[in-house]
Amino acid sequence: MFRLQELVDRLGGVIAGDGAVAVARVAPLDTAKEGDLAFLANRKYLSQVGECAASALIVTPDLREALAGRNLILTADPYLYFARVAQLFNPPPAVRPGVHPLAAVASTLPASVQVGPGASIEEDVVLGEDVVIGPNCHVGRGTRIGRGTRLYANVSVYHDCVIGEDCILHSGVVIGADGFGFAREKSGAWVKIPQAGRVVLGNDVEIGANTTVDRGALDDTVIGDGVKLDNLIQIAHNVRIGEHTIMAGCAGVAGSARIGARCMIGGQAGISGHLSIADDVVVSAWTLVAKSITKPGVYTGNLPLQTHGDWVKNFSHLRHLDALARRVRQLEQHSDGPDDRSQG
Amino acid sequence: MFRLQELVDRLGGVIAGDGAVAVARVAPLDTAKEGDLAFLANRKYLSQVGECAASALIVTPDLREALAGRNLILTADPYLYFARVAQLFNPPPAVRPGVHPLAAVASTLPASVQVGPGASIEEDVVLGEDVVIGPNCHVGRGTRIGRGTRLYANVSVYHDCVIGEDCILHSGVVIGADGFGFAREKSGAWVKIPQAGRVVLGNDVEIGANTTVDRGALDDTVIGDGVKLDNLIQIAHNVRIGEHTIMAGCAGVAGSARIGARCMIGGQAGISGHLSIADDVVVSAWTLVAKSITKPGVYTGNLPLQTHGDWVKNFSHLRHLDALARRVRQLEQHSDGPDDRSQG
Amino acid sequence: MFRLQELVDRLGGVIAGDGAVAVARVAPLDTAKEGDLAFLANRKYLSQVGECAASALIVTPDLREALAGRNLILTADPYLYFARVAQLFNPPPAVRPGVHPLAAVASTLPASVQVGPGASIEEDVVLGEDVVIGPNCHVGRGTRIGRGTRLYANVSVYHDCVIGEDCILHSGVVIGADGFGFAREKSGAWVKIPQAGRVVLGNDVEIGANTTVDRGALDDTVIGDGVKLDNLIQIAHNVRIGEHTIMAGCAGVAGSARIGARCMIGGQAGISGHLSIADDVVVSAWTLVAKSITKPGVYTGNLPLQTHGDWVKNFSHLRHLDALARRVRQLEQHSDGPDDRSQG
Repeated sequence: MFRLQELVDRLGGVIAGDGAVAVARVAPLDTAKEGDLAFLANRKYLSQVGECAASALIVTPDLREALAGRNLILTADPYLYFARVAQLFNPPPAVRPGVHPLAAVASTLPASVQVGPGASIEEDVVLGEDVVIGPNCHVGRGTRIGRGTRLYANVSVYHDCVIGEDCILHSGVVIGADGFGFAREKSGAWVKIPQAGRVVLGNDVEIGANTTVDRGALDDTVIGDGVKLDNLIQIAHNVRIGEHTIMAGCAGVAGSARIGARCMIGGQAGISGHLSIADDVVVSAWTLVAKSITKPGVYTGNLPLQTHGDWVKNFSHLRHLDALARRVRQLEQHSDGPDDRSQG
Repeated sequence: MFRLQELVDRLGGVIAGDGAVAVARVAPLDTAKEGDLAFLANRKYLSQVGECAASALIVTPDLREALAGRNLILTADPYLYFARVAQLFNPPPAVRPGVHPLAAVASTLPASVQVGPGASIEEDVVLGEDVVIGPNCHVGRGTRIGRGTRLYANVSVYHDCVIGEDCILHSGVVIGADGFGFAREKSGAWVKIPQAGRVVLGNDVEIGANTTVDRGALDDTVIGDGVKLDNLIQIAHNVRIGEHTIMAGCAGVAGSARIGARCMIGGQAGISGHLSIADDVVVSAWTLVAKSITKPGVYTGNLPLQTHGDWVKNFSHLRHLDALARRVRQLEQHSDGPDDRSQG
Repeated sequence: MFRLQELVDRLGGVIAGDGAVAVARVAPLDTAKEGDLAFLANRKYLSQVGECAASALIVTPDLREALAGRNLILTADPYLYFARVAQLFNPPPAVRPGVHPLAAVASTLPASVQVGPGASIEEDVVLGEDVVIGPNCHVGRGTRIGRGTRLYANVSVYHDCVIGEDCILHSGVVIGADGFGFAREKSGAWVKIPQAGRVVLGNDVEIGANTTVDRGALDDTVIGDGVKLDNLIQIAHNVRIGEHTIMAGCAGVAGSARIGARCMIGGQAGISGHLSIADDVVVSAWTLVAKSITKPGVYTGNLPLQTHGDWVKNFSHLRHLDALARRVRQLEQHSDGPDDRSQG
């Protein structure tokens, strides 16, 4: 429960209306009830405000007049403000210091650390203050984990990795498994190339459930500060991801790819190996990046959905596009009309 | 070992031939041996029956005459009957009540529950009768799991989730990890939006290995009764899936998508966020759904395979389709022939 | 630390230069320092050798003259030789025999086996010599694991599976979960078909983090000797994969597909069910194989990347390809020029 005035004291913004009003929850416009604090992130939903029962609203300053009579917090970015208020209402779970008797710990840990039942921590592991190692996690020999980082249940971190401060690793994450490197014998058999590099995660990195980040072959795999990876993502060996890049679920990044800072990579996108993506690139969902991208912008390569019948009819031509193009060229050569090919 | 008569007494159907014949196993037509019960789910395999050594066959009633002399169980849906017989021959593993001494349990559990070694169950967890919590599973504070549900080894369920009755969660499943929600600062840094919703699974839900279902941001993520999810599927926050929908491996569903009842979603399909899919929709494998689907039917958007050479030749034109279409328009404008564009 | 002469004594090859030179590490050409052994796998990097500080180089014999004055190991396949040297420098972690007191073991194991904390091994499990079962792994009843195989932390192996010798299973791997098999009732509800088959892995198989291999329905799922699977791959029930086939991350193989020997399957590729792929087939990344492939070769079906604007412009025509083709046909019928359609 916070009064609007308390929120503004902590988070900034300007109050219009009654600063003594108390709110107990944040909620979206369309379901907010009395006692809730709603937010209007996009002006196109302004018409919904009339029916909204929320006790107060987070809005941009230009709406002050239009919403006169409501209790408002005015701020340039209501969605960002909502995020910060939601953090106040939903603080992360408290650290409960101590090592559970069913954990197996072979390193010396700070007293502030929490280690859950079934967790195992090998030799020469260095944990910062307030680190939480969830139930049944494994942390391999020589790994370092920075202050305030939390591993939820069933996370596996291999040996000699580095994880920064204030990171969140969700259940099932695997950090530092061997990269996929083999040399081929003439017989066709594959000879394993030992993966001697590490994984190095920056600070404030969040990694979603069952995502995997492989260790490097000779050098390291490096994930920059503030990177956010969703669930079930594969990051191959020697990949480098710049700070504040965000990647949606089921994306895959092949070996030695370099992704810039502040990129946004869509779900199920694929990034081929040994290429570079510039800073501030947006890759749409379900898109393959098979060549380097050197300029910021939005890049797409996915397919429209059709009814199955239309798909059969239209996509049968994909195998014959070259013939079709040749036929058009032929027609042009025998046409009397002006030639438009130069524009193609 | 069951006699045909016993099977029909339990499962219905009509015997033609000798009801005293005993069968010990179900098997496909082409590999069935003496003592086996085979099934003919599709009339096109009728010619194989002559060589089939099975002691009895499950077939549709119309085949009674054609297969006179064989021992038959006649039923309208042989494949469904086969499934039920297979369940009789292969009952689920028995529950072995008790909490393993290497489990860490902080809630009061019914005596009928089985908790494996290394499992951890936090405070305020409510388990129904005959629940099985496999080795090294984790069940977070406040979660409820209904009667008869089984978690195989290494499943992670976060706090405050609800799992129905008779569900099966395979190894590596993660239920209730944080949804992927962030607001962006001007600097490009991402501010975490706490995920305060839950995951609510209905009854008879089966979830395949390493599949992840994220908790909602403000509302819940809801999976209906009888839904079946294959392995390595990502279900993002606030998704809703209607009852008896089935989804094949590696599919991904983005945030707040609503999928109807009795849908069938193919492997590696992608469903974008904030859209709706009607009941009884079939989405083909490897297809992206980026817009809502309002009518039942089969929808497809995947690519034909070609030899690499043909692919280079044909798909190089994909970047120039607009130019090609323009050239065709140009030709049409200068052609004397009847104009066919109206049909396009 | 090895002298070149020692390396050649163990691994073959011919020395040019000083065999007494000692190297302590392998490194790529562009970052190698004094004391390192670099390798030149591709002649196109020859120009980099001049600046390379490595103490010695692995090269093909034809470069002997061009690199006179450097210390060389001459071998037909420098990359393969590099792999073997890297193995010498980075031997696999030693087995530390013994069962951790926090493991739950219900079978009799050889004294040479290592079982980590939190691991659980059910009844009737047979482990070969020097097997390593990592922390929090689970091995189900009746499973057999061959000599020298290593399971990293948090691997789940269901009952009655067979894993060969010298395999490596990375964290989060799930072997033997139920295949995805259901029969449909008229109501739309799905009836589970018990999965009574096994998973059988050959020798020298490596399986990447969080990859899943489902058990067969009636028959087995079979992975041949020397197969290498990357992370987050789904192998459905009754799939068969021939020896030395390699598959990159996030690929998915649907039920009963048969993949030949020595195939290379790209990342995020999809293989539909009930089809066959011949030996020595290469499938490009992000490609769907929906029909059988009967001949060796490279096959592709992925999409070019475009700026979002170009994509909108070009790909809007994909829904109208049939109309476009029809319009071209129409133009041809009314054209006086020679008809080129026969070449299409």
